[in-house]
Amino acid sequence: MVSRRDFIQAGAALLTAGAVTRSAIAALPEAPMQDSPKTQPPLVPRDGRPYNPVVTLNGWSLPWRMNNGWKEFHLIAEPVVRELAPGMKANLWGYNGQSPGPTLECVEGDRLRIFVTNRLPEHTTIHWHGILLPNGMDGVGGLTQPQIPAGKTYVYEFEMKHSGTFMYHPHADEMVQMAMGMMGFIVVHPRDPNQHRVDRDFVFLTNAYDITPGSYTPRVNTMLDFNLWSWNSRVFPGIDSIPVRLGDRVRIRIGNLTMTNHPIHLHGFNFKITGTDGGWVPPAAQWPETTVDMPIGSLRALEFDADAPGDWAFHCHKSHHVMNAMGHDVPTMIGVDHRGVAKRIISLVPDYMVMGERGMADMGEMEMPLPDNTLPMMTGSGPFGPLEMGGMFTVVKVREGLARNDYRDPGWYRHPPGTLAYEWKGDI
Amino acid sequence: MVSRRDFIQAGAALLTAGAVTRSAIAALPEAPMQDSPKTQPPLVPRDGRPYNPVVTLNGWSLPWRMNNGWKEFHLIAEPVVRELAPGMKANLWGYNGQSPGPTLECVEGDRLRIFVTNRLPEHTTIHWHGILLPNGMDGVGGLTQPQIPAGKTYVYEFEMKHSGTFMYHPHADEMVQMAMGMMGFIVVHPRDPNQHRVDRDFVFLTNAYDITPGSYTPRVNTMLDFNLWSWNSRVFPGIDSIPVRLGDRVRIRIGNLTMTNHPIHLHGFNFKITGTDGGWVPPAAQWPETTVDMPIGSLRALEFDADAPGDWAFHCHKSHHVMNAMGHDVPTMIGVDHRGVAKRIISLVPDYMVMGERGMADMGEMEMPLPDNTLPMMTGSGPFGPLEMGGMFTVVKVREGLARNDYRDPGWYRHPPGTLAYEWKGDI
Amino acid sequence: MVSRRDFIQAGAALLTAGAVTRSAIAALPEAPMQDSPKTQPPLVPRDGRPYNPVVTLNGWSLPWRMNNGWKEFHLIAEPVVRELAPGMKANLWGYNGQSPGPTLECVEGDRLRIFVTNRLPEHTTIHWHGILLPNGMDGVGGLTQPQIPAGKTYVYEFEMKHSGTFMYHPHADEMVQMAMGMMGFIVVHPRDPNQHRVDRDFVFLTNAYDITPGSYTPRVNTMLDFNLWSWNSRVFPGIDSIPVRLGDRVRIRIGNLTMTNHPIHLHGFNFKITGTDGGWVPPAAQWPETTVDMPIGSLRALEFDADAPGDWAFHCHKSHHVMNAMGHDVPTMIGVDHRGVAKRIISLVPDYMVMGERGMADMGEMEMPLPDNTLPMMTGSGPFGPLEMGGMFTVVKVREGLARNDYRDPGWYRHPPGTLAYEWKGDI
Repeated sequence: MVSRRDFIQAGAALLTAGAVTRSAIAALPEAPMQDSPKTQPPLVPRDGRPYNPVVTLNGWSLPWRMNNGWKEFHLIAEPVVRELAPGMKANLWGYNGQSPGPTLECVEGDRLRIFVTNRLPEHTTIHWHGILLPNGMDGVGGLTQPQIPAGKTYVYEFEMKHSGTFMYHPHADEMVQMAMGMMGFIVVHPRDPNQHRVDRDFVFLTNAYDITPGSYTPRVNTMLDFNLWSWNSRVFPGIDSIPVRLGDRVRIRIGNLTMTNHPIHLHGFNFKITGTDGGWVPPAAQWPETTVDMPIGSLRALEFDADAPGDWAFHCHKSHHVMNAMGHDVPTMIGVDHRGVAKRIISLVPDYMVMGERGMADMGEMEMPLPDNTLPMMTGSGPFGPLEMGGMFTVVKVREGLARNDYRDPGWYRHPPGTLAYEWKGDI
Repeated sequence: MVSRRDFIQAGAALLTAGAVTRSAIAALPEAPMQDSPKTQPPLVPRDGRPYNPVVTLNGWSLPWRMNNGWKEFHLIAEPVVRELAPGMKANLWGYNGQSPGPTLECVEGDRLRIFVTNRLPEHTTIHWHGILLPNGMDGVGGLTQPQIPAGKTYVYEFEMKHSGTFMYHPHADEMVQMAMGMMGFIVVHPRDPNQHRVDRDFVFLTNAYDITPGSYTPRVNTMLDFNLWSWNSRVFPGIDSIPVRLGDRVRIRIGNLTMTNHPIHLHGFNFKITGTDGGWVPPAAQWPETTVDMPIGSLRALEFDADAPGDWAFHCHKSHHVMNAMGHDVPTMIGVDHRGVAKRIISLVPDYMVMGERGMADMGEMEMPLPDNTLPMMTGSGPFGPLEMGGMFTVVKVREGLARNDYRDPGWYRHPPGTLAYEWKGDI
Repeated sequence: MVSRRDFIQAGAALLTAGAVTRSAIAALPEAPMQDSPKTQPPLVPRDGRPYNPVVTLNGWSLPWRMNNGWKEFHLIAEPVVRELAPGMKANLWGYNGQSPGPTLECVEGDRLRIFVTNRLPEHTTIHWHGILLPNGMDGVGGLTQPQIPAGKTYVYEFEMKHSGTFMYHPHADEMVQMAMGMMGFIVVHPRDPNQHRVDRDFVFLTNAYDITPGSYTPRVNTMLDFNLWSWNSRVFPGIDSIPVRLGDRVRIRIGNLTMTNHPIHLHGFNFKITGTDGGWVPPAAQWPETTVDMPIGSLRALEFDADAPGDWAFHCHKSHHVMNAMGHDVPTMIGVDHRGVAKRIISLVPDYMVMGERGMADMGEMEMPLPDNTLPMMTGSGPFGPLEMGGMFTVVKVREGLARNDYRDPGWYRHPPGTLAYEWKGDI
């Protein structure tokens, strides 16, 4: 599913100016592209140090090449079209074909060289949120480096000092570029694959958009009142479910790059926060929780034992964050009997639908025509009927046999028991 | 103070379809109703396992019946009228006569059977937030069960696996039903009454409403800009004070079902968070605090030693959450001398009052006529004059002799020292 | 830099009524005033118990006098003019010439007598947030004391029971007085100067204002949508940088008195939260972090080892909190080519500037004329060009030789190594 696109060499001129390039300037590595919003299979490490890969919800991990002991990635900042859920697409900015960008996976001790090519209409940078690195590699435009002009390529080089979960995003015209969807994950695996080991390991980011129903481009100046609350730029029912095997130890790593906290609630289990973007939380300091209040600009890795089978809701507990764009402005009709009024309106507006007189549960099945390119406020169906949800909602499916009962492509999680530790490929 | 109302048998038809009903179908248990918004005395356990009961702030605990080893409760989801504070009533949805619903108290190991009768104009469910239970009992409409239609009764059955503090609320048309006030507490006491024992144990929920001054029904689509910030659907000065004896170990369990965090600040004491809806926090992981930042969809139990006598303010530290509905749109007049303008306006509008020219402290005593059914922004009086507060505010009253100095009904907390542990009534 | 102003004796009449004045009524202590918004050198303790002083970011510490074993401070609540950043001043309310008020520093065990003179146009009080004190000293107007009328002086007296970081602010017409800038810090140093010792110790408060561009007075009823997000009533580029020496152990104590959480993110380091306004956090309970989600009405002391040289960004991670007032309402132009429209507008409005068609990075250097007394949305320059920031942003400068590379007044932090512990001056 990973397509490839030739790299335009025009950016190479900036290379020597842009960063410490101790290595001879080789041809730039290829920049794999992704054209699907579906969850991709984990990227099994073919060279470099071995690790147990993560699964990026509705996303993918970026392949790399090894070059004289350096792990080289190539990110392309560019406008992308992202399907938020079937029926709605958005014009975003992202990396390598999607928003959010691909997850970069590496191992403690790895030396990374990351080429960043700017195909946006304005300058950009990348800040490596949470990573301990030399000041010149920190990616703050104006402060630690010149901006990367449109059309140019910049190189970042640093060694991964410690394992953990980190994020990348621009530190240039920051409000606009993040409101447009420019963000991604960096997972640094422990040098010993048995350290902090779990059976299933998922990552996703919370983000948010304000897109007027019927239009395609986010309003970049919105500060509080977003109408699309998303995980990895997807909203329910576009968010893939999270399938785990009964008895698995499960880790879900969540980053928050919106402008408000998200209390992410898991039904059916108690979990503990085992890691942040500052490192691993000592077990003695962990709290039992059913909801993690995701702070902004932070990462939380939650872990639990999937010891109860079933379909467990997993969602933000702000109730307007589990709704989609349409219907935000519906007035309160509870207790108002407006059948007479409705009849008169319907004679003028044939599609008029009386909403909310007895609550809004009817909207889960409503048939009022929507504008093109938007999503109903409450939607999605489960085995017992409409779920009346949207936005930041999905289901953790705990199954004895993972192949059973999963209606989406189940291929990617079918790695047999015992094969999650990849073999050491030799010293690099 | 608990009245009783006959139960309509119409719902019984749904019983076998709705849930695991291993027991023979008996007549449904009575559904006690509450018609007062006052804090009720703790419900002393008359049968079942013994425990030290909690006090629900401006609320009550629901009586149960034992039936062949099952503790049976009966909740009725229905429209209610709730007095938010003297002078303002709201048309809400709740359970058994009030919003929030009654607290359900039980003991670790108890088997619960909860009958839910739906007298709302639309379907509903109940999700048992934080409780570890079989997936089919999780109460997510469409996902784990069919919705409960209007007029029908559904039965939930599960065993309480661990002690702690949990919440119940609909997972059906969720934004509307929670915006209308449908929520309540479940307290699961430890099997050993001496475990996690305290002297006083209070529970309340934060909730919020947007009711236009002069009207009675909340606007259910409000997402951020609520005008009534309440504890258990009460606002100051309608929130009862929290009386404790000097030297008591005090626990206050708070749940948050609004759409924003509430930093609840206690004057006069340091406290620690000892529990969440995920369980008990190990002492080594606890932090000393004077404010608990209540995340949404979460519970925090705070504990402190009441070692300093006096009247200690206890409130949300967002200053617009300690105000009531009227006056939210008053313009800033500081530094403007508008005596001339005011005189001219007063000749047209006799009740016009110049507000805010020198700050707003005058409003604590203002006499501008209010519309019917609303509350002034700042109100309430203490021993030294107007408190200039509203919303999420009350007072923890620490007294040597509890009977002294409490101007509200002091009866309920007069259980003599040493009688808080109720005797074991035999094996069930 | 500390000027002095004679104290008006008129307030003395209230003294006996206002508080426990066991001491003979002496002449009131002088009330030092500050007329500069620059960071002042640490106040070296000349009498009383010794301690390692803090540095208040863009602020100062209040001198005191010793009087028969009491440490006497004198605060004057009054209207002030505060420069938010070069180019913008605000009419605020504060203490002793500035908003926020001066930091009060003392030592565990100290007995404090704080005279508060009210020169505001309305009554006020001071609540000593987080301090364990007698109920009558708690400063809640109406509940624990009468309000302090305009023109009067009130006296607070209490002993500092434990070390830590606390805040002071009115508990009278609270929303207005805090929205106008009335707040400050109290630092209680440990009795043993080697306990909790660090090399550099900074304090600041987050606050927020809503000032229409071109005007001077905050709108006091704003609840969510502030347009100036400040640290100690300063916005970037008006916030001083935080210079530390390479290898220093650094503590930054932050209080939040806005109406929303602030996720304060530090680049380049992991830190731990070592203290709250409830006391010191035990090391075993601390979490590694790169962002601290500042709750409202709370204090967090973060600590880290400054082991990496460079200019490290330190800012709120809500991206609209690192912007200033102008430009909040700019519409989204991305993807719109409006050169034709712009040409026509420019013929009518010569200064019209096309903003945002390719993002907003151009605004970092824009030359559109601003109204008097406001600040551009994105501003500030670093060594590599425009920083495109505003609001809650500054830089932690880690330098081997502190005198190097600091373009602001470096004098105050030049205390030589080893002199930070001040000598014991004898028993008091």
